[in-house]
Amino acid sequence: MNRVTKLFSIKYPIIQAGMIWCSGWELASAVSNSGGLGIIGSGSMYPDILENHIIKCKAATSHPFAVNLPLLYPDIDKHVKTIIKYKVPIVFTSAGSPKKWTSILKNEGIIVVHVVSSLKFALKSQAAGVDAVVAEGFEAGGHNGKDETTTFCLIPEVSSSLDIPIIAAGGIGDGRAMLSAMILGAEGVQMGTRFVVSEESSAHQDFKNKVIETKEGDTHLTLKEITPVRLIKNQFYTKIASLYEKGGSNNELKELLGRGRAKKGMFEGDLEEGELEIGQVSSQMNKVKPASEIVADVILEFNKAKEGINSDKFNFK
Amino acid sequence: MNRVTKLFSIKYPIIQAGMIWCSGWELASAVSNSGGLGIIGSGSMYPDILENHIIKCKAATSHPFAVNLPLLYPDIDKHVKTIIKYKVPIVFTSAGSPKKWTSILKNEGIIVVHVVSSLKFALKSQAAGVDAVVAEGFEAGGHNGKDETTTFCLIPEVSSSLDIPIIAAGGIGDGRAMLSAMILGAEGVQMGTRFVVSEESSAHQDFKNKVIETKEGDTHLTLKEITPVRLIKNQFYTKIASLYEKGGSNNELKELLGRGRAKKGMFEGDLEEGELEIGQVSSQMNKVKPASEIVADVILEFNKAKEGINSDKFNFK
Repeated sequence: MNRVTKLFSIKYPIIQAGMIWCSGWELASAVSNSGGLGIIGSGSMYPDILENHIIKCKAATSHPFAVNLPLLYPDIDKHVKTIIKYKVPIVFTSAGSPKKWTSILKNEGIIVVHVVSSLKFALKSQAAGVDAVVAEGFEAGGHNGKDETTTFCLIPEVSSSLDIPIIAAGGIGDGRAMLSAMILGAEGVQMGTRFVVSEESSAHQDFKNKVIETKEGDTHLTLKEITPVRLIKNQFYTKIASLYEKGGSNNELKELLGRGRAKKGMFEGDLEEGELEIGQVSSQMNKVKPASEIVADVILEFNKAKEGINSDKFNFK
Repeated sequence: MNRVTKLFSIKYPIIQAGMIWCSGWELASAVSNSGGLGIIGSGSMYPDILENHIIKCKAATSHPFAVNLPLLYPDIDKHVKTIIKYKVPIVFTSAGSPKKWTSILKNEGIIVVHVVSSLKFALKSQAAGVDAVVAEGFEAGGHNGKDETTTFCLIPEVSSSLDIPIIAAGGIGDGRAMLSAMILGAEGVQMGTRFVVSEESSAHQDFKNKVIETKEGDTHLTLKEITPVRLIKNQFYTKIASLYEKGGSNNELKELLGRGRAKKGMFEGDLEEGELEIGQVSSQMNKVKPASEIVADVILEFNKAKEGINSDKFNFK
């Protein structure tokens, strides 16, 4: 039990990342029902779709769940209205400044957590009044920060500088990594990649299979000039790389990216022309499992790793 | 006690990285005398200089020490001859293929460790017959791999695929990080940045002070087309960044880099025109200390972190 489990009223400090095209009500409710915290990823949802997912999530679990809210979402007012209307207890904000929305949400009694990738934004988030931050390292999937600070360096830095609790993200795919991140100063972990390959994830089956096949070195953080994103190297990625080699402009990059690439790849299963956002830890994924098994496995792995520390291997007197 | 302490006959599995311009006999012998493993960085030494450092190191410690040998060093035959002549017990090879030199060194009874930044090269190193590998993450200072795999992702990947012991490097600046890396599967850690700011490090005092001032986000991995290197963002770095923006060629980058930049920055203290190689973990450094205190502190921090796991914060039953 720690500040993260208390803050969210959950059994295990395992948070399933709110991910576009992957985490709807099925996944979020399954994780919350298993003792973790499930998050609906609203970034890929129209307002009425989000409303529908919230209604279904509430019906599927009596445990707390959250909505991830990208602060640059064009129809953000509608999303916030829905979140308030249905009394969603927790909101994870990301991709934008938490200054405006934190107080609006907190005035409604909602717990607010902001996702950051640097100490600077972590301090700003604390100043904005959030209840906790997710500190996300360079190895994380999807959109990421410009400083490229890794989980190993970011967690000690942020946890020693902030008073509020830290949730670690990026590179965390099992209970051993969860324990490591907590030793570095986190009080919980947010896992994306591991839950992409859950049965309840709404990712396309072909994308799930692709994630499981992924080997070390198969993802890359690219499009740094537009908005840094970590994805699997496929034909779309090769086109980006060629454009960089030719010295393409930001406009050319934006044009190549176009619209709907993430949906095409992750939701529709176009593995070559789609944008396949995933973390470096994908190389460690080996099976699609129900979310409840994933949560149970992570806790088993965590406790096994804890016991392992008592062995001679860790004893230097 | 584990396979790394046994392999090197040392008390603590704390290895001081062999670093150009920073780790001569003073630092290496001080670390070895403190129960860790000190390494002379031969990459910045002419053959006669290395000989001199080995002679002095042997006189200064009766404990095992090592030499780091970059396999692309132009006069490598001379370095190897010296290493054999003075019966240096351990060699850490890096930056090149371990295929040729591993058997030559091992035939002389020398323990060989190779530094890798990906699973692929880790497997090749094991096949070449090395006794252990250093798996170095993206956050590490100086030269680095193209796959950009971070310590959090690399260590579990490499340790679960190899039979030989793994030493973790990159992002490890204290005993807490040491414990985290060992939970991920390492049996020891190699620390560079922390020993750059030791009293015995031959780095220029101004460079040591600069490292201590460094904040999160102040280093960057650049020159990826020539040879990826992590360095502090200074005027020299700004010039690289401008050249990239202009779409400069590899030849232009090489010309800008020129020769002797690392010496200029790290050894002569030119903080703006020099190449200041350092890890992301530099943001956590806060004091220059004797190497013996650093080793003792790391073990204290390690044992404190071990005890911390017994607290309620880590208990989810």
